[in-house]
Amino acid sequence: MKNYHLSPSQFRKEGKRIIDWIADYYENIDQYPVLSQVEPGEIIASLPEKPPAKGESFDDIIKDLNEKVIPGITHWQSPNFFAYFPSNTSFPSILGDLVSSGLGVQGMIWATSPAATELETRVLDWLADMMDMPEKFKSTSTGGGVIQDTASTAALTALIAARERATGFESNKKGVRQRLTAYVSGQTHSSLEKAVKMAGIGVENLRIIGITEHFAMKPDLLQQQIQKDKKEGFLPFFVCATIGTTSSNAIDPIRQIGEICRDEKCWLHVDAAMAGTAMVCPEFRHFKDGVELADSYSFNPHKWMFTNFDCDVFWVGNRQELINTFSILPEYLRNKASESGEVFDYRDWHVQLGRRFRSLKLWFVIRHYGVEGLQFHIRKHVELAQKFASWVRQSDQFELVVEPPLNLVCFRHINGDDFNMKLMNEVNKTGRAYFTHTKLNDQMVLRMCIAQTHTEEEHVLRAWKLICETAEKISTEIR
Amino acid sequence: MKNYHLSPSQFRKEGKRIIDWIADYYENIDQYPVLSQVEPGEIIASLPEKPPAKGESFDDIIKDLNEKVIPGITHWQSPNFFAYFPSNTSFPSILGDLVSSGLGVQGMIWATSPAATELETRVLDWLADMMDMPEKFKSTSTGGGVIQDTASTAALTALIAARERATGFESNKKGVRQRLTAYVSGQTHSSLEKAVKMAGIGVENLRIIGITEHFAMKPDLLQQQIQKDKKEGFLPFFVCATIGTTSSNAIDPIRQIGEICRDEKCWLHVDAAMAGTAMVCPEFRHFKDGVELADSYSFNPHKWMFTNFDCDVFWVGNRQELINTFSILPEYLRNKASESGEVFDYRDWHVQLGRRFRSLKLWFVIRHYGVEGLQFHIRKHVELAQKFASWVRQSDQFELVVEPPLNLVCFRHINGDDFNMKLMNEVNKTGRAYFTHTKLNDQMVLRMCIAQTHTEEEHVLRAWKLICETAEKISTEIR
Repeated sequence: MKNYHLSPSQFRKEGKRIIDWIADYYENIDQYPVLSQVEPGEIIASLPEKPPAKGESFDDIIKDLNEKVIPGITHWQSPNFFAYFPSNTSFPSILGDLVSSGLGVQGMIWATSPAATELETRVLDWLADMMDMPEKFKSTSTGGGVIQDTASTAALTALIAARERATGFESNKKGVRQRLTAYVSGQTHSSLEKAVKMAGIGVENLRIIGITEHFAMKPDLLQQQIQKDKKEGFLPFFVCATIGTTSSNAIDPIRQIGEICRDEKCWLHVDAAMAGTAMVCPEFRHFKDGVELADSYSFNPHKWMFTNFDCDVFWVGNRQELINTFSILPEYLRNKASESGEVFDYRDWHVQLGRRFRSLKLWFVIRHYGVEGLQFHIRKHVELAQKFASWVRQSDQFELVVEPPLNLVCFRHINGDDFNMKLMNEVNKTGRAYFTHTKLNDQMVLRMCIAQTHTEEEHVLRAWKLICETAEKISTEIR
Repeated sequence: MKNYHLSPSQFRKEGKRIIDWIADYYENIDQYPVLSQVEPGEIIASLPEKPPAKGESFDDIIKDLNEKVIPGITHWQSPNFFAYFPSNTSFPSILGDLVSSGLGVQGMIWATSPAATELETRVLDWLADMMDMPEKFKSTSTGGGVIQDTASTAALTALIAARERATGFESNKKGVRQRLTAYVSGQTHSSLEKAVKMAGIGVENLRIIGITEHFAMKPDLLQQQIQKDKKEGFLPFFVCATIGTTSSNAIDPIRQIGEICRDEKCWLHVDAAMAGTAMVCPEFRHFKDGVELADSYSFNPHKWMFTNFDCDVFWVGNRQELINTFSILPEYLRNKASESGEVFDYRDWHVQLGRRFRSLKLWFVIRHYGVEGLQFHIRKHVELAQKFASWVRQSDQFELVVEPPLNLVCFRHINGDDFNMKLMNEVNKTGRAYFTHTKLNDQMVLRMCIAQTHTEEEHVLRAWKLICETAEKISTEIR
């Protein structure tokens, strides 16, 4: 009798075909234009308006994948992708995630798959060791780690836990009634603004602290603003410091900010979304000096640690504050193991209830590369970025906007904002490289982030040459 | 030179091995105990305390997968899994998700992969048609769909958008200052309580409306409570109605609740997390009567539509309200396409900024099964549940607690709470079936949810026999 399922033997066949499809994709990836060249509406117009009444073959699905989906892909895994922050991945990660999809477990509580909880706990303890994080972030101490989807959600989680700690868990009961104030710099990621809205704090109560010429938060201004707010009857409760801001990779002074937070009883969240991965190398750990003063910390293996999206590591120093904030216990989830208190139920550590087996891909990555392999690649990316910066420094047409601390180079052509914007768009239109912009000191700035898994010196050099040639071409046209 | 990566040809080899590993797993899945039998701490103790300094081989990783991870798995994909709500998957879904991992795109805005946005828009419009949803939920009208991770996050998203609409977008600015009240029944999913806390509303402002003997919300009590709250100076702003509650699959009367919401200007969110999938069959659509009055609606293809976790479909009738609530625009995300207003940027439709290519697995499922194949399986599951209910009805040892509307059977042994709890634990300990409990009318109730991809009549019959035999055994021991 027809049951419509793919049989295991059909799955073996089609699965191997998809594996080959992915391998082929990577072997040919630099032949695609990095930035998709389609126009708005082009993809949707190519797809049937009505769903299929009857099932279709894998031949047809893969044909459409090639002909309709691929043209609409911006190739984040291309070695010529230098835009935004990366979202790099690796073959071991893809396979770890495949195992997670295959097992199909839902690890909301310990009992619904003990391995999903315990492997995650162990892998996050490993990472704390690999990065020389404070002992309190480990499950064997007062805190622990949990995998969140994104740094945005991690920031929201930290903000809400901070809100509850500051109000004695009263806002969970009565709603936000106190006049709470949170603190970021103008360079902090926009997700903090979003989090402050979502958590019912309100953007008018988000204080934007001034920055140094290196775009880092000024602790003295933070201190002044907190004192001012206290005098006016506000309750300062939360500060977000960043290791590696999105615009320029600026490093906030964690120790000085942390000391203020300690004295003022503010929750310190450290957002190290991309740059955090660099902490696997001892030579970059000075950037996190003072991190033992943080209440929470997050970084994204899905940015720079070869682990595919989504995977954000979130550590707290005191897990009980987190659990008290997010825990709810309906009857249908009651079970012996949870009630024994011997296990973690990760649903109490984040926004969602359900969760897939999140740690498998990260476990595959760490085991495949080892600490040594991860260090090798991080160092190579930083070296390539420094090399790119040296080319900019030597050029008489371009200038560095700030000295790059790690793998993000902020630079601009000397001909002003419009020229730089035109230059970026022209380069991106060629499809041979893709990079993006930001604004710093009210100037349009080009960003070159070097962190793609397969980026080698040849790719960086070709991108630099393309940028120079395109600038030359635009200059000639203008003359 | 050693670069530590897996090469494409190694990936072909290891990838095919993982495909075979997954096929083997499914071919042998009913030989594993459904509920993992490990003790707390057993898995973590089996894993090395220190991360690997040097990379390890895939042989070693797969060996550990078999020996250390598998014993800690509760087998959600076993045909003998009848617990909670399911989290079913299928081979086409696993492969669709594999393609998503392989492409590794981050679709936060249209430009970062137009296909990731436009395929999602089209697939969710398909689903609206497949389920005869109101026109306003389609992208071609005033609303549209977006894939969220879970129904919990969808509920939070709806609640926050409702909060903003009710306050004229003032609470995003000033924080929650108004005395807002939200409404659910005692059978509404616990994620609503969590959402009310996270959004700064406070659980004291969450009203729990009474229920009928079928565990559905009573509209007259909702109406009374809203009037009472208004008299006392509260601002009623949000109601969550459920199609298929978690405890008993109760169906709230959407039309009557919706009319109240329309008159009182409350946002109506409909949570159809599991039962929503049944709407692919015309004969079950009467359960959603009145849904055109809803402002938002969500259901989880990752529960009952053979699409692996996570995948929640979230529709709104007015996308502008959603976007106005969640939109933020930092300079580094500015781009022509977004500013043209011709495209959707899905980061403005939910909590997170980043998002993987979420729709691929759902597209694979719909194309592989077709509407016909999905209907076939939903009908089969409902039939099996009705058959199970008939066996309970015929038994003199067990009783139905409520008539099952769809695929969840709530029943109990006549010997009281302790007996039922013991019975459940004993059955689960055998590893031959796994089901869970709830409380209804203050009584311990057993829940048998039939929705696993590969569950056939033989599995349901064996589970019933096992339950009966175990009950008999316990009765004998007691005597």
